[in-house]
Amino acid sequence: MKTPVTVLGLGAMGTALAQAFLAAGHPTTVWNRTPGRSPELTDAVRASTVAEAVAASPLVIVCLLVDTTVHDALEGVDLTGKVIANLTNSTPDQARALEATLAGATYLDGGIMAVPAMIGGPHAFILYSGDSAAFERHQADLAVLARPLYVGADAGLAALYDIALLSAMYGMFGGAEHALALMHSAKIPAVEFTEQLLVPWLTAMLGSLPRIAADLDNPSQAAAAGSNLAMQAAAFHNLIDTAVAQGVDPSLLTPMGELLQKAVATGHGDEDMAATIRLLKTNV
Amino acid sequence: MKTPVTVLGLGAMGTALAQAFLAAGHPTTVWNRTPGRSPELTDAVRASTVAEAVAASPLVIVCLLVDTTVHDALEGVDLTGKVIANLTNSTPDQARALEATLAGATYLDGGIMAVPAMIGGPHAFILYSGDSAAFERHQADLAVLARPLYVGADAGLAALYDIALLSAMYGMFGGAEHALALMHSAKIPAVEFTEQLLVPWLTAMLGSLPRIAADLDNPSQAAAAGSNLAMQAAAFHNLIDTAVAQGVDPSLLTPMGELLQKAVATGHGDEDMAATIRLLKTNV
Ligand SMILES: NC(=O)c1ccc[n+]([C@@H]2O[C@H](COP(=O)([O-])OP(=O)(O)OC[C@H]3O[C@@H](n4cnc5c(N)ncnc54)[C@H](OP(=O)(O)O)[C@@H]3O)[C@@H](O)[C@H]2O)c1
Ligand SMILES: NC(=O)c1ccc[n+]([C@@H]2O[C@H](COP(=O)([O-])OP(=O)(O)OC[C@H]3O[C@@H](n4cnc5c(N)ncnc54)[C@H](OP(=O)(O)O)[C@@H]3O)[C@@H](O)[C@H]2O)c1
Repeated sequence: MKTPVTVLGLGAMGTALAQAFLAAGHPTTVWNRTPGRSPELTDAVRASTVAEAVAASPLVIVCLLVDTTVHDALEGVDLTGKVIANLTNSTPDQARALEATLAGATYLDGGIMAVPAMIGGPHAFILYSGDSAAFERHQADLAVLARPLYVGADAGLAALYDIALLSAMYGMFGGAEHALALMHSAKIPAVEFTEQLLVPWLTAMLGSLPRIAADLDNPSQAAAAGSNLAMQAAAFHNLIDTAVAQGVDPSLLTPMGELLQKAVATGHGDEDMAATIRLLKTNV
Repeated sequence: MKTPVTVLGLGAMGTALAQAFLAAGHPTTVWNRTPGRSPELTDAVRASTVAEAVAASPLVIVCLLVDTTVHDALEGVDLTGKVIANLTNSTPDQARALEATLAGATYLDGGIMAVPAMIGGPHAFILYSGDSAAFERHQADLAVLARPLYVGADAGLAALYDIALLSAMYGMFGGAEHALALMHSAKIPAVEFTEQLLVPWLTAMLGSLPRIAADLDNPSQAAAAGSNLAMQAAAFHNLIDTAVAQGVDPSLLTPMGELLQKAVATGHGDEDMAATIRLLKTNV
């Protein structure tokens, strides 16, 4: 028999997780604060309390809104002998603090790198950290949801990677939203622009990230070969001016303009992008 | 014989453009403010004044630092009968104003979507707008540099597309730089993270842009299927808190957090990302 699993939380993501377990034949118990959510999960056992849901399975997946919600839900519940895999978005510190409170249980913290529609599909992955024995024991069960990637025993590590990837995603979405707002301001259809120009362009530019990363790992003293920061800072005024002229709020771009100016002002005008990453570190 | 061409400006980009023309067999005349730049261009004819450089060819490519530099360089020079293709980064308004001052010449404004190393290669493209007859006459010449894409007769259009794509790129780079700064703060090697997680993740997330664009073109009243803004706004605090805890300046992320909060506060908490684009428009 497949490992019985429990899913706490039937929001958009918890529902997708429960669905994937059911589709793979795992006996699946679910709980949600508001009863009756996701009626499509007809094969799931519905528990009316968290304690009942936790008691049903050795592996308990938690996918609630935020960290405080998780503490509230698990408060006073007997978790002895359970593996708690918490896929709720958290900070590294929240993950470590939660682990410390879960007496009698082993803890895995997870960061879901997917939207719900990607769960069970080939491009989703979930980062895990915490108890390595628990991860190994349940790796095949967790693989039903998405490719599981164990990043270390420190429970906070999965959250660190998760938050880093989400930060990168929001930067990309912010830039793309700004671009689409500019197109919209000129009544240029967004879909054609996105498919024919925006996605190919960003895909090409993604290709420069490994080189920037290499420069961060091993700083080279070489001046920029292709796109120096002084030139970029000079051109950046045009990005802000164009936004304003088109009636688009430039706020999403402003901090990058300031970072480029700061790099030039502190003597990095002939370097390239990697120099700005070092300027982001406030504790050096 | 191939069309003789002139390139004004031998910075990193102008040099790459001149090199591509020379490699394709175009008689190429170059001018740069500081003489002696890019000695590797041994087959180019070096003009000592802008007037001499312009006189040498029917097609004049301008690639200087900023718009004011272009005005300075062309001031008082006889441009009669020339096609001026200005690939210097500009705003739409700068492109239109420059076109208006170029008596006797036909104007093409261009936006280079490439770094210098990509010039002449398969992934580079250059957006053009302005005089369509001049574009058609020189399309094959311009194709030597990068795939030429004509976007319209309004000289400002290439700059609008260019600035939109650059805005998107800087958003993506900003997010990626923030992510790399987080990894650096935890002494996690940047290259492995970038190649194995960051680039695949951003590539997967690029896949959601066409859907966001479609929602912008044809607003649907449907609530978010997968990732509602209220959930995103709640999780966003974790991105800021993690940056601060790791000693990374959160400035590049802050405006996106504020935009998500604003979306929730104005009643869009159950919608998804497309709703935030509408909030960027200040003139609606
Ligand atoms: N959706 C995504 O794209 C995505 C991707 C990666 C990670 N995540 C993370 O996954 C988690 C869930 O996201 P989601 O998209 O499923 O969010 P959602 O659709 O908004 O669902 C939120 C869930 O949290 C529950 N909840 C909220 N406040 C609660 C409380 N005080 N006590 C108990 N339960 C409470 C809700 O229960 P009710 O039904 O009773 O309101 C619901 O089950 C979040 O941490 C999110 O950051 C989501
Ligand atoms: N490099 C890229 O990745 C890239 C990509 C797309 C578009 N662009 C655009 O291409 C243009 C050139 O960029 P680049 O990378 O070649 O910059 P760069 O390497 O910094 O070169 C700047 C060029 O502008 C000239 N210049 C500066 N101020 C001048 C002035 N007052 N009068 C006359 N000439 C002046 C410089 O001449 P001196 O040698 O005398 O200083 C040099 O030829 C910019 O508009 C940039 O935004 C660049």
